[in-house]
Amino acid sequence: MSLKKLRKDNYPEWYQCVVSEADMAENSSSPGCMVIKPWGYGIWERIRDVFDEKIKSTDHENCYFPMFIPLSFFQKEAEHVDGFAKEMAVVTHSRLAMENGKLVPSSKLEEPLIVRPTSEAIIADSFSKWVKSYRDLPVLINQWANVVRWEMRPRLFLRTREFLWQEGHTAHATAEEAEKETLTMLEAYKELCEQTLAMPVLSGRKPEHEKFPGAVDTYCVEAMMQDGKALQAGTSHFLGQNFAKSANISFVNKENKQEYAYTTSWGVSTRLIGGVIMTHADDEGMVTPPKIAPYQIVIIPVIKNPDDSELVMSYIKELQSDLAKQTPFGEKIRVKLDKRDKSSIDKFWEWTRKGAPIILEIGKRDVEGNNLMLRQRIYINTPEGKQVVSKDEFVAKAAQYLENIQHAMFTKAQKRLMSNIREDIIDKEAFAEYFANANEWIADNTQGKVAFVRGKWCGEPETEEILKQMKITIRCIPFNQSGTTGTCLLTGKPATMDVIYARSY
Amino acid sequence: MSLKKLRKDNYPEWYQCVVSEADMAENSSSPGCMVIKPWGYGIWERIRDVFDEKIKSTDHENCYFPMFIPLSFFQKEAEHVDGFAKEMAVVTHSRLAMENGKLVPSSKLEEPLIVRPTSEAIIADSFSKWVKSYRDLPVLINQWANVVRWEMRPRLFLRTREFLWQEGHTAHATAEEAEKETLTMLEAYKELCEQTLAMPVLSGRKPEHEKFPGAVDTYCVEAMMQDGKALQAGTSHFLGQNFAKSANISFVNKENKQEYAYTTSWGVSTRLIGGVIMTHADDEGMVTPPKIAPYQIVIIPVIKNPDDSELVMSYIKELQSDLAKQTPFGEKIRVKLDKRDKSSIDKFWEWTRKGAPIILEIGKRDVEGNNLMLRQRIYINTPEGKQVVSKDEFVAKAAQYLENIQHAMFTKAQKRLMSNIREDIIDKEAFAEYFANANEWIADNTQGKVAFVRGKWCGEPETEEILKQMKITIRCIPFNQSGTTGTCLLTGKPATMDVIYARSY
Repeated sequence: MSLKKLRKDNYPEWYQCVVSEADMAENSSSPGCMVIKPWGYGIWERIRDVFDEKIKSTDHENCYFPMFIPLSFFQKEAEHVDGFAKEMAVVTHSRLAMENGKLVPSSKLEEPLIVRPTSEAIIADSFSKWVKSYRDLPVLINQWANVVRWEMRPRLFLRTREFLWQEGHTAHATAEEAEKETLTMLEAYKELCEQTLAMPVLSGRKPEHEKFPGAVDTYCVEAMMQDGKALQAGTSHFLGQNFAKSANISFVNKENKQEYAYTTSWGVSTRLIGGVIMTHADDEGMVTPPKIAPYQIVIIPVIKNPDDSELVMSYIKELQSDLAKQTPFGEKIRVKLDKRDKSSIDKFWEWTRKGAPIILEIGKRDVEGNNLMLRQRIYINTPEGKQVVSKDEFVAKAAQYLENIQHAMFTKAQKRLMSNIREDIIDKEAFAEYFANANEWIADNTQGKVAFVRGKWCGEPETEEILKQMKITIRCIPFNQSGTTGTCLLTGKPATMDVIYARSY
Repeated sequence: MSLKKLRKDNYPEWYQCVVSEADMAENSSSPGCMVIKPWGYGIWERIRDVFDEKIKSTDHENCYFPMFIPLSFFQKEAEHVDGFAKEMAVVTHSRLAMENGKLVPSSKLEEPLIVRPTSEAIIADSFSKWVKSYRDLPVLINQWANVVRWEMRPRLFLRTREFLWQEGHTAHATAEEAEKETLTMLEAYKELCEQTLAMPVLSGRKPEHEKFPGAVDTYCVEAMMQDGKALQAGTSHFLGQNFAKSANISFVNKENKQEYAYTTSWGVSTRLIGGVIMTHADDEGMVTPPKIAPYQIVIIPVIKNPDDSELVMSYIKELQSDLAKQTPFGEKIRVKLDKRDKSSIDKFWEWTRKGAPIILEIGKRDVEGNNLMLRQRIYINTPEGKQVVSKDEFVAKAAQYLENIQHAMFTKAQKRLMSNIREDIIDKEAFAEYFANANEWIADNTQGKVAFVRGKWCGEPETEEILKQMKITIRCIPFNQSGTTGTCLLTGKPATMDVIYARSY
């Protein structure tokens, strides 16, 4: 009943298997784009709802901006910004025509339109109309939208041509206020990853060559996948006056002088779902954190004799109504009764592969004993994973069970992260040797697998090429710097800056 | 303080004024596309949340499908379907290149991609992979997405090149079940319009020439705007086996025979917001139904002397915490305290133009009397619109106030609709004369303005041309047919079918 691919044998194939067996997403006939299926989309809806509440409670408002951006809006960026990415979907025609029985593009546009890869350009254009005086600042907005980047090696959730995300965009009267906003939202991402996705992250600043093109500073949260690779989970950019200058977002300040605004932008995407999978899934499939599970508890009736059906179903009905009053995480509980015309064992494995946190199997014997069979996904294949529990006790503790699972998932992932940051590599030979071993699955309670290295970096431009050749990246310059002096792991030169090195997605 | 344009003087310009003064949306630098601003987007969020709950409670699940659809997917439709609309955004390149200092499209795609005008084609393709046996049916899915139709005369909310909507798509084993689904969702739209938007609608079937291309039957809900024109608020299509045949959605039925599935699709869009405006707004601006108002109650402190600030603000704080316990419509109440550095009179007019259902003005005198100034938007400029009310009484009745407003808005609009359907026109001369008068604003409690006519239609193909010349449309064939025989209002021929004639948006 387990997945065709095990984590230890082939991590990348195992990942595809989990996505497919959990029925979360699939490739589509639209090249490089994915279909997000109900279980995957349900997870995204939970992430969205949780973060949307955060966005609003921090005084941001949602808007919606056009997905088509006139080509000319990118002209300045392309001329002046290093690393400006040009892989974009370009709309050139506005009609189809039938020519010799075949549909062809027709009505060529005067100016081509770009499908937004991100909305800085079009939003800055609006800001320039909205902002006239310091009284109009700050502008704090966000949008939930689809964006397009022309990826050549698409991979479900991790890298698809179209994906879903939120992008926050703000404008401020001072650099200090904008920097504070950038860090506030970075902290909000850390909280989202850790408290909602049970995915621990390291946060810090990106080195110069990894910054968002046009940003003054890019901050990020980085998670460790089960194969020791890093996944950038979210970024928050302090854009200084760069975008304000090119889009003319200027205002009259309190001293009655014209000044450019300071802007920020920050985003997380459906990529987070890929991160959740590679943080929590196991050889039996997906393991979904209760806070984002579309269903937290799935009830499977086990009816061997049709005569027992009424008895079992009325017992379940009672259970459902008792459970409905529980409020795990202070929210309405999400319970699903699986009544489909399928064997209970098939249903069990289906929900196991989807990673429903708790499955309750209920048959005649359970009804007679006023019990239920409690199966906790995270403890599968251990005695704790399958327990007969009194119904009343389960109802009373349902919220607690879910909260414990959420907590256990975070703790386990946190331990993996903490145990696999090597800090003892201090010369470049050891460093090169360490990363020469390919990344593979890190079993629980192991350490020293190829994962992250925390070590020195001299910051010289020449290191960029060395990193490229080693296929290693600097994930971030963590906020908590040691302040010691040591040797750059790339050049051997004296260095004081601590950075996190890792392979990455 | 009122709008620059009055409803009676120039209805179309008044509409644009309301949208702009309520700061709901604006035109953007992206041709034909709109920026939906926080107050407009907040209304959309409420509509989405309410309808999303309905979608889920009727067993549908949300998914997300690619917005790019390969051109070839439209080939069959273009060949076979009458009325296939070809105004679509076409993506032809996947890169930008710099040529002589100018950005130009580069990397031409092998096959052009269409930005979805609706997703039948790409979703049917997925259904064909998902559906193998009758056990896989029904498939009941929905998506919230942006879509593009290349409108040549864009108008905020009503007709923009990009807009937001939900599109439900389902597949069933039998025609009966699919037809039932089509009508269930039509009824859900009627409920959404009437109970949530306070916008009464007529429902029925579209005549042949107004059907969605490729549908067997299109059903619709039609609302009457304040100028007597109809607005199609939502449509639900029974697609028969047409799309199933062209995308090969086939399954093995219970008798072990291969059969094509029966599909449906149904959608409502941000156009609803245009409908809400033209149903409820007045000469002072927007009037937002409490159920969809981003803020149901706005509190404006009136502080004439800075010394009173603490007193007033602590009184308001207490009020806020009392109000927070109220649950109008069984939901969390939405209260906004407007603390901005602006005069209270400016704030009052701003929220009035946005149509906040209730504004509370609170100054020192109110605190001393344990009162507040209650301003109900729908009663503006009447004694009821501005009342001193005891704070305790208001808190106790807050939910009731909002529920009464919602009810009053629906009743008023319902009366307008009912009073302006002419049923007494029975010959084609009177009919032509009636519609020869241009549509203009229908003041409350008036009737007989140019609006809807309920009368006979012979159903002959020749009537299509007559309708086009008269600039009239048949909005629907209502479900409640009289069964009488009369004269077709277009041809004078004998006819039995009752239809609703109107000008439309």
